Amino acid sequence: MKSEAFISGSGDWQTVGPGVTRKILGYDSELMLVCAKFERGAVGSLHHHPHRQVTYVASGRFEVEIDGAKQTLETGDSFFVAPDLVHGAVALEPGMLVDVFAPAREDFLK
Amino acid sequence: MKSEAFISGSGDWQTVGPGVTRKILGYDSELMLVCAKFERGAVGSLHHHPHRQVTYVASGRFEVEIDGAKQTLETGDSFFVAPDLVHGAVALEPGMLVDVFAPAREDFLK
Repeated sequence: MKSEAFISGSGDWQTVGPGVTRKILGYDSELMLVCAKFERGAVGSLHHHPHRQVTYVASGRFEVEIDGAKQTLETGDSFFVAPDLVHGAVALEPGMLVDVFAPAREDFLK
Repeated sequence: MKSEAFISGSGDWQTVGPGVTRKILGYDSELMLVCAKFERGAVGSLHHHPHRQVTYVASGRFEVEIDGAKQTLETGDSFFVAPDLVHGAVALEPGMLVDVFAPAREDFLK
């Protein structure tokens, strides 16, 4: 059990859309951390889910839309998505988002 | 409400220990994202809490201890802390951790 707590980037990057790859890092049923890497211009399409989400911009610059409002976020910025709010992001330059979900996105594990 | 979702690094960095500063970013009662910046050699002392925690190493290199096991983690690595497990970190070089808690650390808001 102990060693499973340390996840050292050994997970696989999965392509989940044009110019978007995703890697699942630490999680249990209630909390899940996922890295999402975007090429310039890549899009995380507008979508919604019952999980709450908080995201940290690890690198790059993104136009983020939440519930119809748009804002440009840069490295070190963060955004919060309440359950079921429609949200999406466009990478204005190559970058990476650290997405955290509560509860875990079981759909990502299939 | 909408604009509150976008938190663009305007929060304050608070000194929480020698060489350690913390900034609270997006959160609600159930989920909270917190950045913790460490100078070289700074210590996040061993502690525990009922909140589950997942952490992303945004920069630097840390010796992380969880439930008695130690591992060195670098930028892009992650670790998960189950509720009540004793954990801590030592910054082997200057760096930043992105800590996410479920539920929120209400004690950080006081």
